Amino acid sequence: MAKASWQGTNLPRVGGFNRAVVLDAIRQHGEVSRVELARRTGLTAQTMSNIVRALIDDGLVTENGHAPSTGGKRRVLLKVVPDAYSAVGLHLDPERITGVLLDLAGGVRMRSRRRVPDDTSPEAVGAALARTFHQLVRRSGIADGRVLGVGLAVPGPLDAANRRVLGPPNLAGWADVPLADIVEGRAGLPVVMDNDATAAAIGERWTGRADRAGSFVYVYLGSGVGIGVVLGDQVHRGVSNNAGEIGHVHSGGGRECHCGRKGCLEAYCSMRAIVADWRAATREEPNGEPVAATYESLCRSAADGDATATRVLRVAATRLGQALASVVSVLDVDRVVLGGPALRHVAELVRARVAKVVDAQVWAPKVRPVRVETALIGDDAGAVGAASLVLDHAYSPRLTTLLGS
Amino acid sequence: MAKASWQGTNLPRVGGFNRAVVLDAIRQHGEVSRVELARRTGLTAQTMSNIVRALIDDGLVTENGHAPSTGGKRRVLLKVVPDAYSAVGLHLDPERITGVLLDLAGGVRMRSRRRVPDDTSPEAVGAALARTFHQLVRRSGIADGRVLGVGLAVPGPLDAANRRVLGPPNLAGWADVPLADIVEGRAGLPVVMDNDATAAAIGERWTGRADRAGSFVYVYLGSGVGIGVVLGDQVHRGVSNNAGEIGHVHSGGGRECHCGRKGCLEAYCSMRAIVADWRAATREEPNGEPVAATYESLCRSAADGDATATRVLRVAATRLGQALASVVSVLDVDRVVLGGPALRHVAELVRARVAKVVDAQVWAPKVRPVRVETALIGDDAGAVGAASLVLDHAYSPRLTTLLGS
Repeated sequence: MAKASWQGTNLPRVGGFNRAVVLDAIRQHGEVSRVELARRTGLTAQTMSNIVRALIDDGLVTENGHAPSTGGKRRVLLKVVPDAYSAVGLHLDPERITGVLLDLAGGVRMRSRRRVPDDTSPEAVGAALARTFHQLVRRSGIADGRVLGVGLAVPGPLDAANRRVLGPPNLAGWADVPLADIVEGRAGLPVVMDNDATAAAIGERWTGRADRAGSFVYVYLGSGVGIGVVLGDQVHRGVSNNAGEIGHVHSGGGRECHCGRKGCLEAYCSMRAIVADWRAATREEPNGEPVAATYESLCRSAADGDATATRVLRVAATRLGQALASVVSVLDVDRVVLGGPALRHVAELVRARVAKVVDAQVWAPKVRPVRVETALIGDDAGAVGAASLVLDHAYSPRLTTLLGS
Repeated sequence: MAKASWQGTNLPRVGGFNRAVVLDAIRQHGEVSRVELARRTGLTAQTMSNIVRALIDDGLVTENGHAPSTGGKRRVLLKVVPDAYSAVGLHLDPERITGVLLDLAGGVRMRSRRRVPDDTSPEAVGAALARTFHQLVRRSGIADGRVLGVGLAVPGPLDAANRRVLGPPNLAGWADVPLADIVEGRAGLPVVMDNDATAAAIGERWTGRADRAGSFVYVYLGSGVGIGVVLGDQVHRGVSNNAGEIGHVHSGGGRECHCGRKGCLEAYCSMRAIVADWRAATREEPNGEPVAATYESLCRSAADGDATATRVLRVAATRLGQALASVVSVLDVDRVVLGGPALRHVAELVRARVAKVVDAQVWAPKVRPVRVETALIGDDAGAVGAASLVLDHAYSPRLTTLLGS
């Protein structure tokens, strides 16, 4: 029998949801009293007291001194126990694997980087990912039972239902790879997987505290371009978990894209495309260096004031801004966050140009000024986001808790 | 004190939410038993029994015979009482005012059309809207207390917080008009206002029964182009209630738009733009006829097999399809619904072309085949949508009921 489009809710579900709401509020607001928590979450003092006691019993929250006196009894402050649990995040980029160990408070405890092996077969790459995981756990000295799981951030598109990577054009030779299962088999812990842009958006919310609440579009600029969509404090994943696949939308031009079609955004805004533009402008031949390395040279030149490098980046940022203006118009969000490794050295240059284009092209600016900001997390956005997937899955309030799924 | 980003919930809120869930399920699924309702909504038999009794006491639901026997006791069927309440919807288009009276079951009881008066001042147009409202209520013979309110669908953008129309480029001379208050003053009933595309999307869900649940993009094709975004059975309105303003996103071309910028989607896909293309192709001079009338002649010609008219419409539909491919890619929805008066005579021609372009340009087609359909509601989509705003506001399950706002 088909389910109704809305499911009702009940007391056990409400209990689980409210517990997640309280933990989320403590995490986001730092040190906070029970009274303040009750006010912030709309829950009664009695409900709050019960939930906090359970969170303390479970070791997730601890009492941490007293608030300054405001006349009456000084209030006990609560905070999350960072060491209670942690998660490992692994980010697979076409050229690099990055791993982090993230604690419950969103702090990065360990970090590890390695090149993607020359043998780029799924098994070899899966083994390299698992090695990064084991190395992080070993070096951290954290007891096995305290690591909740592994988050995996990969370039989209994904077949999320079957935990498979569908052959992103940036990873040659990969088609329909069961990567989550490969890594899970080698790591011995549950693996959750998402595309890198969505993971980075969750990471920004998880580690970024209260100022990353609400609705925003997170633009992940790595080898390619993807966006993570956060609406009303919930990540929007879409019917096939591929929301935010903006890299291959038609951007108005006719340039050939590595995906085989023409005019895609990544034909103009990927690292590869920008490097090609730079080589054309400077009449330099490719020198066999990896794309990311040449791209970084280009960005250093722009940061040092080189006019050609600056112009090439501005042209790409203009096209990115046009695509984002459409996204902002359709979603009606008032915040765009730019993040990812492609911004290194040039974050403000790119931000300023995107902001200018968005401001000029978004309709109804009077009722909807749009802020364009750079991310709180830098180069490691993908890996931190991957680890956040695990913590978010375990601890964030979610409507499916309340309504069933 | 700032609220936490998530609010907790409690029993009274759960009660109100579950009641709306049950009414919505009865409305969407037609005649249905308590047992089936409990299964569909995930609520217990006891909770269901209590909620249904209250809905019957309030006159919103009635018992309506028995289900065929399946061996045991025959189950009593429930259905919504259509006459319990109704709402008036008014749609203001640049050339026409359409009004409908909609009953609680989503049936259109009365319909009224008039031309926008020659005096297009906000007061004169507001008076014409109010006349349409009074005429509908008078002709229907429905008791005043049974009309819940007035819904108003207007071209965006809006300043929703202040209930003002911000001067859509299709309504010359309108800038920052408090239209909802003007109509409310003259109608004597509460007025809710939204842009026409969002209203039409809600109408499609309200009157369309279960096959319009879930997530979809509704494309409203009137004088201009707007979209309504429905995600997980909730209308997505955005931070300023202007989500779906797609008419003035950059579509890749350089043609001047009536909004003063270049390359907007409406510079190619509005009725005015398509009529101009037709005149250019047939070398006909403008004849002083309203744009909508010429547009309708064009569509009749295309329906009769005229090659030029068909080609002009296909070119516009191609550009529309490209814009929608981007929206589908970003949101990851698997359904696009095309509706509105601009489809009259040519719905299948436009649908087929849009479907072809979307299919070719949306990434990850393997995990996300996208259906492109025409709307269940035809010409009156704006007005039916407007009335649905009122019913939806009063009776649909919404998360703000559960979580506070």
